[in-house]
Amino acid sequence: MIKESKVLDHGIIGLIDVMGNDREICDAARKSYGPGTKSISEDRTLIRYMMRHSHYSPFEMAELKFYVKCPIYVWRQWIRTRTANVNELSLRYSVSECEFDVTPHSEMRKQSSLNKQGGGELLSSEIVEELANEEMYCLADIENTYKRRIAEGMSREQARKILPLSLYTEAYWKIDLRNLLNFLKLRLDSHAQKEIRLYAQEMASFVKEIFPLTWEAFEDYQLNAVTLSSLDQRALYELNLLREEDLKENKVLDSIFKNEREKKEFIDKFTRLHLTRNTE
Amino acid sequence: MIKESKVLDHGIIGLIDVMGNDREICDAARKSYGPGTKSISEDRTLIRYMMRHSHYSPFEMAELKFYVKCPIYVWRQWIRTRTANVNELSLRYSVSECEFDVTPHSEMRKQSSLNKQGGGELLSSEIVEELANEEMYCLADIENTYKRRIAEGMSREQARKILPLSLYTEAYWKIDLRNLLNFLKLRLDSHAQKEIRLYAQEMASFVKEIFPLTWEAFEDYQLNAVTLSSLDQRALYELNLLREEDLKENKVLDSIFKNEREKKEFIDKFTRLHLTRNTE
Amino acid sequence: MIKESKVLDHGIIGLIDVMGNDREICDAARKSYGPGTKSISEDRTLIRYMMRHSHYSPFEMAELKFYVKCPIYVWRQWIRTRTANVNELSLRYSVSECEFDVTPHSEMRKQSSLNKQGGGELLSSEIVEELANEEMYCLADIENTYKRRIAEGMSREQARKILPLSLYTEAYWKIDLRNLLNFLKLRLDSHAQKEIRLYAQEMASFVKEIFPLTWEAFEDYQLNAVTLSSLDQRALYELNLLREEDLKENKVLDSIFKNEREKKEFIDKFTRLHLTRNTE
Amino acid sequence: MIKESKVLDHGIIGLIDVMGNDREICDAARKSYGPGTKSISEDRTLIRYMMRHSHYSPFEMAELKFYVKCPIYVWRQWIRTRTANVNELSLRYSVSECEFDVTPHSEMRKQSSLNKQGGGELLSSEIVEELANEEMYCLADIENTYKRRIAEGMSREQARKILPLSLYTEAYWKIDLRNLLNFLKLRLDSHAQKEIRLYAQEMASFVKEIFPLTWEAFEDYQLNAVTLSSLDQRALYELNLLREEDLKENKVLDSIFKNEREKKEFIDKFTRLHLTRNTE
Repeated sequence: MIKESKVLDHGIIGLIDVMGNDREICDAARKSYGPGTKSISEDRTLIRYMMRHSHYSPFEMAELKFYVKCPIYVWRQWIRTRTANVNELSLRYSVSECEFDVTPHSEMRKQSSLNKQGGGELLSSEIVEELANEEMYCLADIENTYKRRIAEGMSREQARKILPLSLYTEAYWKIDLRNLLNFLKLRLDSHAQKEIRLYAQEMASFVKEIFPLTWEAFEDYQLNAVTLSSLDQRALYELNLLREEDLKENKVLDSIFKNEREKKEFIDKFTRLHLTRNTE
Repeated sequence: MIKESKVLDHGIIGLIDVMGNDREICDAARKSYGPGTKSISEDRTLIRYMMRHSHYSPFEMAELKFYVKCPIYVWRQWIRTRTANVNELSLRYSVSECEFDVTPHSEMRKQSSLNKQGGGELLSSEIVEELANEEMYCLADIENTYKRRIAEGMSREQARKILPLSLYTEAYWKIDLRNLLNFLKLRLDSHAQKEIRLYAQEMASFVKEIFPLTWEAFEDYQLNAVTLSSLDQRALYELNLLREEDLKENKVLDSIFKNEREKKEFIDKFTRLHLTRNTE
Repeated sequence: MIKESKVLDHGIIGLIDVMGNDREICDAARKSYGPGTKSISEDRTLIRYMMRHSHYSPFEMAELKFYVKCPIYVWRQWIRTRTANVNELSLRYSVSECEFDVTPHSEMRKQSSLNKQGGGELLSSEIVEELANEEMYCLADIENTYKRRIAEGMSREQARKILPLSLYTEAYWKIDLRNLLNFLKLRLDSHAQKEIRLYAQEMASFVKEIFPLTWEAFEDYQLNAVTLSSLDQRALYELNLLREEDLKENKVLDSIFKNEREKKEFIDKFTRLHLTRNTE
Repeated sequence: MIKESKVLDHGIIGLIDVMGNDREICDAARKSYGPGTKSISEDRTLIRYMMRHSHYSPFEMAELKFYVKCPIYVWRQWIRTRTANVNELSLRYSVSECEFDVTPHSEMRKQSSLNKQGGGELLSSEIVEELANEEMYCLADIENTYKRRIAEGMSREQARKILPLSLYTEAYWKIDLRNLLNFLKLRLDSHAQKEIRLYAQEMASFVKEIFPLTWEAFEDYQLNAVTLSSLDQRALYELNLLREEDLKENKVLDSIFKNEREKKEFIDKFTRLHLTRNTE
């Protein structure tokens, strides 16, 4: 394996194989968009240009193959991404090793009343103790029940029905870089369940190392981007916060935008915001 | 709902909406293949022609939307089919109603030693009694543990980890007819787990009623087809079972193939088998 | 056909069939996200919430089937969208009717030197006259050559090789609403070629009429949204344009954001922008 | 490039990169199907087993990236396969080099009156001479017209409209092995247009060299397989060609089926055919 990280108590995320790199993504882009992109001499500039303008197809020219060992409740979220190739261990054919993701004391989270997902606050330590004990007993009960069924000759495909969503499963998972970035955007988000976020963070660090230019552009233009809706834009104007004359302080802009085209696009965006207001 | 069937103890498969019918599939085919197909006057003949010659794209012009309530271990197989649209109930947002697919006494199957999947043979009745009791106690334990966690304010996304694969989930599932037929071929197969086969059988009966011509052709050319590999073909010849002269008994063929083109294609296939042998 | 519009000289875009509506999209969302979304009483609020937070899967529950008649150079861009079902007229089977998209005098555009795509500026009228004549003669030549080949019995699949990219083709095209919106975002963009934009505009008007709530949310949160990259955000701060105290003028915000949650999210976004600056 | 072949007059098919091999396909299968497949010691036997039983997902774990230079009429068929990643040269950005696929004298085929596709018969030599001249003049006319348009400053996206379907285009094309085999099955078929078949044949030779076990199994169980429909099966029985007692000549079968399981499956198939007949 090229890279491998441990996640949760028994989980693993491994990078088995990679096709392509930043340079080859640029080769594909130059083929596609022709002389226009050939004049963009630097790979970094080209990759940023593509990410900024939603020219995503060249990023599909890279492919990554992972080994995943994660709890089933994580895996069920994982494969909502349909644009990937999958080979998962089947418990119709194999007997389960009954490895469960046991919730650590320090991770028992309260239900948030605000949003409908799990919040960040932790349960009080007495409750935690009790719930952890109950989980331990319940998992032992499940494991015994499963093992009895197998020992008595029950079909594996039926015996497994009693196994919990915290059971670890294993899979090979292969995806192109464009769709992997979509997956990571979704699963690195603060609204994603923490347990899947931990996997996503490891995968992100693999991508960052192997595709440094793509990752940098992805962070700047997607992961850390802020989207202003029509209403947001109107609000900014009604609040009278943005004044065209301020743009004349070009020195500040020069220190931020090393690339002339990026600076120009910022001014265009600003002007577009300005126009929006005037035509309301 | 247009159609609805009960499956297992608490399961449901419902057909919510349909776009298209046999006639509209033919319209698309006639647009695509032009005059050639226009000369095939009858819809039935055209549909059989397309199914026989792997011209599947016109079947993508029909779309079906289902409501599914099934155990998670069934659902996990179900969504291996990636060419569908899915909205599944999330237990990060909702509290589970703890409805489980309890294995009926009369359905506790033995593990087959031959193939690696579940066999058809049943466990002996004493064992069944014991295992059923154990399942009941274990499910009660799981339900209590889950409910306690929810009551103590644990986040739903974590509380659910203890729930078993036999838990019922619910989803909307939408797919085009071509991909639905692929799904049914796979899930009606005798190697598919019986519990998912029961769902597939209900869905097949829906399709049969709404797309009768497509279903008939699908049965003849796919579901009940037999595929002879290179080796199979050689074996048939070495066994000297097929003799060209036998084809002269055309009367028999006429009674089977009402359609001249289908008869011709059978003779071609036969002749090709014969040639294979001679060129070995 | 439910709706039909003429585009270009001989082009057509027709809406043949629709599955679903705004209400049914909400049904799927409520099933998926459970009680959390049930409390959002109004369909409009729920649809806006989903569009704002990238919960796109419920929009896949609607499906639209189109009839398209467009030039091949438009169609080649069209089917870059792979998540659709397609039945296109084949000139291997049919003889072409030689209908070409003739460039109107008033539409002969200059090559832009700035961006690499076609600009909006028009060619001078003398040149236009000449080029139009040449196009006319060349198309006549092509048509004659093609017809001769057909008349002399050349295979259709070879005869067609001489036909130009301006030839009209016909197809059925079926896609779910989520992917249609992606298609429209791409093809309504000012960087898309004008000829495909004309088709997209007609399709947008169909969607707007049949899915009014979805369309409104799509316009506000995607089509007219502005995305601020990391650098953009830094620039806004360095320019010192956004001051937290300005947010206290809540009356302006109240007049813009009728929905409390949307207002809150705006303030969060603003604060996040502010924090970005402070942590640089 | 790993491999490269010339096709047609100016066409190229090159294999740029490969992920995986026969061994790694087996690794994925063994992970997925567990002990059952581990007992199949040999990779060759396992690959044949999977191909025979439609367990295709392990073949998705291999990925191939191609460079394609082919005429547009070939490319339009090519990308009907939607499960691939594509970067094609765009003539909105680049000026065309006007390389056309000129139909060779020795390849001018007659339209078949039987099937609706191009037949194998050639046009008479006098006609060929004439049509070839006309094609040459027409292509020269098109090239001149296009070049004039570019020289006069017409936008590239409009100028290209006059270019013919025989124009060469270039692309990067990336696909997993399972879907590549589907593509090849379709495009190696005798009903596919000869010009795309030539590309498919080169690609097949690449696959055969890099994935020899997969290719052998694909040939035996798919490419050279014969499918017997329900009616075909009935016909074979009514013709009384297959008699169960003939199977007793096991020596013949032994010499054909080296693998016991394959032999057993043949006998099962045979018996199933026999049963079909009895239950009609």
